[in-house]
Amino acid sequence: MKISELSRHSGVSLPTVKYYLREGLLPAGRSTGRNQAEYDVTHLRRLRLIRALIDVGNLSVAGVRQVLLAVDDGELPGHHLLGTAHEAIAGVPRADRGGPAWQAAREEAARIVADRGWRVHEHAPALDQLADAIAALRELGQQDMLAMVDGYAEATERLAVQEVGLVLARGDRASMVEGLVTGTVLGEAVLTALRRLAQEHTSAGLTEPPG
Amino acid sequence: MKISELSRHSGVSLPTVKYYLREGLLPAGRSTGRNQAEYDVTHLRRLRLIRALIDVGNLSVAGVRQVLLAVDDGELPGHHLLGTAHEAIAGVPRADRGGPAWQAAREEAARIVADRGWRVHEHAPALDQLADAIAALRELGQQDMLAMVDGYAEATERLAVQEVGLVLARGDRASMVEGLVTGTVLGEAVLTALRRLAQEHTSAGLTEPPG
Repeated sequence: MKISELSRHSGVSLPTVKYYLREGLLPAGRSTGRNQAEYDVTHLRRLRLIRALIDVGNLSVAGVRQVLLAVDDGELPGHHLLGTAHEAIAGVPRADRGGPAWQAAREEAARIVADRGWRVHEHAPALDQLADAIAALRELGQQDMLAMVDGYAEATERLAVQEVGLVLARGDRASMVEGLVTGTVLGEAVLTALRRLAQEHTSAGLTEPPG
Repeated sequence: MKISELSRHSGVSLPTVKYYLREGLLPAGRSTGRNQAEYDVTHLRRLRLIRALIDVGNLSVAGVRQVLLAVDDGELPGHHLLGTAHEAIAGVPRADRGGPAWQAAREEAARIVADRGWRVHEHAPALDQLADAIAALRELGQQDMLAMVDGYAEATERLAVQEVGLVLARGDRASMVEGLVTGTVLGEAVLTALRRLAQEHTSAGLTEPPG
């Protein structure tokens, strides 16, 4: 198909498609003449992955590039790909990481993981994110919220067995790879949306008299 | 304390403190002379809440303003405050909401909630977020991930009882209000960080031979 059809089928505007081509996120089409190129379903599919990562995952263009490099690297073991997706989604670290309060929170994060017997990389970006949240809760005097940590850890451990099982059940590697990336980003969006809805429902039941 | 001490104690740079004052996020200090004002622990505490919402919750300045207005509105019932916090965190809607594929996803989101008997506002922003994620999964051909919805809904429902209970257990209204906002934003950060760690642990166990 022509670039104009690629734009129409994907719902991505023509200037944005051209921008992704220039940035190398989208591979060039097959040249069919001066200023003319032919695109196929692989371009369409890649375009949809890019939009999902940006629109739903809130990734930067640099983050998308990092994930796509990992997706296209046939040598990279699936487990490392998961780490790459997590790093890209983690985004820019907070400026004040490294102070004594943050270091204490980082040790607390490592202890939580060790207490559960979880085997994770000692530099996993999610450990830093957990420390960010713990440090912020303590700074704000909201550390009673940390009573939820055990409940969260048990729930996520149980869910992870299903989540990783779903991805591994896929036959081919390319599809497993897409599942890892989209499952991390979009699965998180589904989970947090449901959490807010469950809270609204529970809060209505506990704070308002039944109608 | 002086503005320079407020900056030092909070770890927020002086130009940023002045910016928050100009933007009205931080109330003015008590004037003690020309270009001199005195700040107290309420300013320090507010400053920490602002930083947590921006650094950990990724809220825009406009989003922070919206949440702070709700926090300071003594008339607003706690339940509505939760909705305000969710709306601020929801951020800018995707441009392509409203197309037929998105509408179908939105109806699917409403059905998921209705099937569980959850009482939520029909315009709850989290319903739109759930629809965004469902639409993106379908567009990407990753709809097998939707098999996780039941597991997510059960887990979040169980956790919400504990979460809302923790906030309601607090004595005074101001502290409940802060707990609602920070619990939504920072609790989500704790939960998603733990989810990624649990996935890494499970993925290592399922894809690598034990060492």
